[in-house]
Amino acid sequence: MTPADAPAQEWQVSQWFNTPAPLSLGALRGRVVMAVAFQMLCPGCVSQALPQAQRVREAFREEDVAVIGLHTVFEHHDAMAPTSLKAFLHEYRIGLPVGVDEPDATCAIPHTMAAYQMRGTPTLLLYDRQGRLRRHMFGHVSDMQLGADVMALVGSQGDSRFRAETAGACTAEGCA
Amino acid sequence: MTPADAPAQEWQVSQWFNTPAPLSLGALRGRVVMAVAFQMLCPGCVSQALPQAQRVREAFREEDVAVIGLHTVFEHHDAMAPTSLKAFLHEYRIGLPVGVDEPDATCAIPHTMAAYQMRGTPTLLLYDRQGRLRRHMFGHVSDMQLGADVMALVGSQGDSRFRAETAGACTAEGCA
Amino acid sequence: MTPADAPAQEWQVSQWFNTPAPLSLGALRGRVVMAVAFQMLCPGCVSQALPQAQRVREAFREEDVAVIGLHTVFEHHDAMAPTSLKAFLHEYRIGLPVGVDEPDATCAIPHTMAAYQMRGTPTLLLYDRQGRLRRHMFGHVSDMQLGADVMALVGSQGDSRFRAETAGACTAEGCA
Amino acid sequence: MTPADAPAQEWQVSQWFNTPAPLSLGALRGRVVMAVAFQMLCPGCVSQALPQAQRVREAFREEDVAVIGLHTVFEHHDAMAPTSLKAFLHEYRIGLPVGVDEPDATCAIPHTMAAYQMRGTPTLLLYDRQGRLRRHMFGHVSDMQLGADVMALVGSQGDSRFRAETAGACTAEGCA
Repeated sequence: MTPADAPAQEWQVSQWFNTPAPLSLGALRGRVVMAVAFQMLCPGCVSQALPQAQRVREAFREEDVAVIGLHTVFEHHDAMAPTSLKAFLHEYRIGLPVGVDEPDATCAIPHTMAAYQMRGTPTLLLYDRQGRLRRHMFGHVSDMQLGADVMALVGSQGDSRFRAETAGACTAEGCA
Repeated sequence: MTPADAPAQEWQVSQWFNTPAPLSLGALRGRVVMAVAFQMLCPGCVSQALPQAQRVREAFREEDVAVIGLHTVFEHHDAMAPTSLKAFLHEYRIGLPVGVDEPDATCAIPHTMAAYQMRGTPTLLLYDRQGRLRRHMFGHVSDMQLGADVMALVGSQGDSRFRAETAGACTAEGCA
Repeated sequence: MTPADAPAQEWQVSQWFNTPAPLSLGALRGRVVMAVAFQMLCPGCVSQALPQAQRVREAFREEDVAVIGLHTVFEHHDAMAPTSLKAFLHEYRIGLPVGVDEPDATCAIPHTMAAYQMRGTPTLLLYDRQGRLRRHMFGHVSDMQLGADVMALVGSQGDSRFRAETAGACTAEGCA
Repeated sequence: MTPADAPAQEWQVSQWFNTPAPLSLGALRGRVVMAVAFQMLCPGCVSQALPQAQRVREAFREEDVAVIGLHTVFEHHDAMAPTSLKAFLHEYRIGLPVGVDEPDATCAIPHTMAAYQMRGTPTLLLYDRQGRLRRHMFGHVSDMQLGADVMALVGSQGDSRFRAETAGACTAEGCA
């Protein structure tokens, strides 16, 4: 791992989906970056982490926060090859840029997953505008905690998108 | 309404629950304050706004963020008197400090609700550490947006409580 | 309690809401009857049992299954008087016929609740077409179990309303 | 399609998972049978139909109701081969017997899916104890409707498993 005040290690990606050009931490410098390491057959990734990543993307401005996925396959490799991932992203309508963590010829753990010493999937990585790793977490957190944490990194120059819903709310005319 | 850079108007409360002493914006100066105006028989308040207020309370440190409820009864007054509110808070295990918005002898709308020109319930009020009103919103927002907004007011001297859950997550030993 | 093969005891109700005339087990003979004993300030009643009762009402034909509520207040009596109940039914848009279980002048437990020896709220009572009590249950069951149980009493002369939803379903044109 | 009073067509399955021996409608005669046609990359199948199938399995006795899955792959064939299905069933802990609908060498639609003229996935098939097809439905229904429908076929010789939960329920000691 790199020192806390240095930019974090780059992702090692063999193939990208949903982006016109490869992405890198370096190229995203200046924005907060949230990366979700996932596997397409990991139940908690599909039901929790990926939908949450899409909510982060909707809650913040694109110029403030970049959200990407990393497909870190460490088991059932033949069931989660890039061709399967492509079908998964299409069927689940996942529009996030997703990079395939580079497989290791001699080990089940792919390169980025190993370099970051991830315990499993999903793993959340949060980087500040200087590309420094500020959160590294296995599992998932609540939307409120994540919204707060991302905002702490976005800082005062950013803003969230505030939209109210009124289902069940009451006015003098009755309850919606 | 007061000017944007002046402290907001004080709440007018006839009775408090769940607090040893009456609360006021003035006394909470120095902390971010979130107030939820609700009615105990408003479905959206019970199912959404009050549970969300409790989640805000859990996600931030008490010295950074104060969360209170305001019982702003503007309809069915005899069904939502303080004695009913007390039973409601007990049965729903709501531990937030709750103030009863002072009834107006000549109008259905209680004093604080009128002074703040609220449209109905739930209404969310967010104040910064200087007691200035920064959000005034009818209905409810997502947890992620609210977490981000509260954090923007808490600022860099604060911190959120980050707790991961791992249900459905996968490691080399299998999926939880 | 009455013998298993005899019609069950009548409800003792002091006041009805949402029905043009008082209801009774006797008058509903010929239909399966589901009664939900609830309190308007009981969280599990509001979030689970009453919405489920409305779903039973929608899933079966009215000529096969009658669904009613019994407001069995055994605590916080002054907070759950009929005037409060009326406001509650209005705000929560509960259209079920609801009877107020007759209060006992000398005991916190109202008459029907005592006669049926209910443990608390919610309590589910299921009667067959002959007015015999077939289920008596504190708490709540899953929708699937309840649907099955009601259908077992409705029998072959009845039918459920079968409506499919296709959110997330896939055809050759893609996933909805 | 076969006449309504004749046993339905057999499934055409190239491979079974989660069962010691191949299954057939004929061999299951005497029990109600529910078959769910699904694809492992169909979002509505994963989030709705398969969990519901597991709930049917838990709600009824095994001697009354058999629940099976049919993997009817009609798109992205290389991403949903049996080896991928095996990994999916393992990661999602799906214990239902699952048959792979026999692929057609000249058509994207597999044999059973074509023979039953299914529109897509999920498709629910319900058979009575005599092996006759009684429901054929694309999409999904509510648990209550499905519980009722299965029970209507199980008939009076069967029984559901009735289990109460008491979260949020109230007794004289307070609300759980």
